[in-house]
Amino acid sequence: MSKIRLGIAGYGNVGRGVEYAISQNEDLELVAIFTRRNPIEIQSKISGVKVCSIEQAENYTDTIDVMLLCGGSACDLIQQTPYFASLYNCVDSFDTHAKIPEYFAMVDETSKKSNKLTIISTGWDPGIFSLFRVLGMACLPKGCEYTFYGKGVSQGHSDAIRQIKGVKFAVQYTIPIDSAVNEVRKGNNPVLTPRQKHIRESFVVAEPNADLVFIEQTIKTMPNYFCDFDTIVHFISEEEFKTKHVEMPHGGFVFCTGTTGNENKHQQLMEFSLQLESNPEFTGSVMVAYARAAHKMYQKGETGARTVFDVPVGMLVAESMEELRKRIL
Amino acid sequence: MSKIRLGIAGYGNVGRGVEYAISQNEDLELVAIFTRRNPIEIQSKISGVKVCSIEQAENYTDTIDVMLLCGGSACDLIQQTPYFASLYNCVDSFDTHAKIPEYFAMVDETSKKSNKLTIISTGWDPGIFSLFRVLGMACLPKGCEYTFYGKGVSQGHSDAIRQIKGVKFAVQYTIPIDSAVNEVRKGNNPVLTPRQKHIRESFVVAEPNADLVFIEQTIKTMPNYFCDFDTIVHFISEEEFKTKHVEMPHGGFVFCTGTTGNENKHQQLMEFSLQLESNPEFTGSVMVAYARAAHKMYQKGETGARTVFDVPVGMLVAESMEELRKRIL
Repeated sequence: MSKIRLGIAGYGNVGRGVEYAISQNEDLELVAIFTRRNPIEIQSKISGVKVCSIEQAENYTDTIDVMLLCGGSACDLIQQTPYFASLYNCVDSFDTHAKIPEYFAMVDETSKKSNKLTIISTGWDPGIFSLFRVLGMACLPKGCEYTFYGKGVSQGHSDAIRQIKGVKFAVQYTIPIDSAVNEVRKGNNPVLTPRQKHIRESFVVAEPNADLVFIEQTIKTMPNYFCDFDTIVHFISEEEFKTKHVEMPHGGFVFCTGTTGNENKHQQLMEFSLQLESNPEFTGSVMVAYARAAHKMYQKGETGARTVFDVPVGMLVAESMEELRKRIL
Repeated sequence: MSKIRLGIAGYGNVGRGVEYAISQNEDLELVAIFTRRNPIEIQSKISGVKVCSIEQAENYTDTIDVMLLCGGSACDLIQQTPYFASLYNCVDSFDTHAKIPEYFAMVDETSKKSNKLTIISTGWDPGIFSLFRVLGMACLPKGCEYTFYGKGVSQGHSDAIRQIKGVKFAVQYTIPIDSAVNEVRKGNNPVLTPRQKHIRESFVVAEPNADLVFIEQTIKTMPNYFCDFDTIVHFISEEEFKTKHVEMPHGGFVFCTGTTGNENKHQQLMEFSLQLESNPEFTGSVMVAYARAAHKMYQKGETGARTVFDVPVGMLVAESMEELRKRIL
């Protein structure tokens, strides 16, 4: 059977995660990487495939089946997705929750025009956490759903700290509060404020002579990002930062609780959790699985935009439905 | 919007679980219950709908959209499914893993002939545990998968004990061994024998003057069921049995572990668990969600047999894909 031929657009942490993931799947093949930067300056140290400028992407429509869009939601995808969706089947990890409906509509229109298919917002949240929330709604319709994040690095919150004057490096860990997790796990359906669910812990390397009090106060009172949480700020050396805080772990829990039966007397609990030593590599792995599904759905004649909710789970793997029924069901 | 009209075939624990589940979903309506027993002697104490004999099922093809087959796999479904699949869209919880391929083929042929659709082997295992195993294979293709069961009542093992001479009542609890679960959760990928994964604990009410030593030895040495496990046997009074061992809790864990990245250095863990106070009620709830999906897929023109692997997860709930993208993704 011929391999599914993939391209990567955007070569940062997630792009490299996708590249590693492709190498773990024998039915998939990486054809080329596309970058906004000068391709001469970029080399793939993983697969060694050629690196091209994004403008060259239009020359690969005969040799790439699915393009994995690995840019950031805010700056890259909003601009790049219309271009790629007009040429390719695509998969992305668009994660600006509030903008998903308009983004979906834009991608749907573009993909229908080009007779291609794009699966948006794959990854783990949005993505397989979303899938699990729907599974919970389906199985326990009279129930509650809780999502906790961490312990892990939040890129958005780390970026927000880096914008503060006097900050050289910063990382922010989101930490779920054990007592809250345990209340949910016991089926007590607690009402939880943001402060009761997560702690935010930051490690900051300040510029020489920076105003540490100003930095700490600015972090702790920052609207949307920190003011609704108990936030811990540590100032550390650049050396400590570079040895202890360069990995990108993450994870979290989705709990779906509900009751069934006579007088709702039986408590039922569904729990899904991820413990990831590398968030971008797992995100890349999920995107690659959805790229396979995008190719299969396109082969069946589907076009337009899709999300994880539209994809039969059996399409995510190389095995046929027959093999899955025999071995896994 | 008109409701999806459902029927229940087989009115035991799972059938009642389905009936409770339907009452939790406003887009669903129960039309009738079908039984092999004398319908005069059976009453629904839950919804109060009419109870009919199975032979009358052919009179309801205009008023029932999906039939939920709630009989046991070994005796009921093998016989009844061809009949119902020739008349209705159906959902079942067929759980004889080894016979799934031939059962699927039979149902597929029957359903295609009748231009109907049947989703087989829903419930939680086979069912949503299977779904999760495939999700794990998809996201972590170079990984290991572990399924643990319990703590909970195994009907099959309880039945096996009840066949022993001198046993009046019996219940068997399957208990996962914490140390094994923790090894898996730490990502150590242990090789585990059945004995290292689960303990089997039985509570037996013996007939007067029964040979307790014989009963205990027969249980502990029973091939397939008990001989490969550490098995604990307690003899208790009928009174204790009827107060402490009438509920049907169950649950379990599916772990999918794997590594990603450069030299596979990053450990990734996916964990899915269920803690169910009522196994048959949760099974019923899952079946009802798949009944909704069966109706939607049939409305789109699909016929034949399907499994959980073929069903887009968004079809399991009443909400539209648009609502799901907006609220849940």
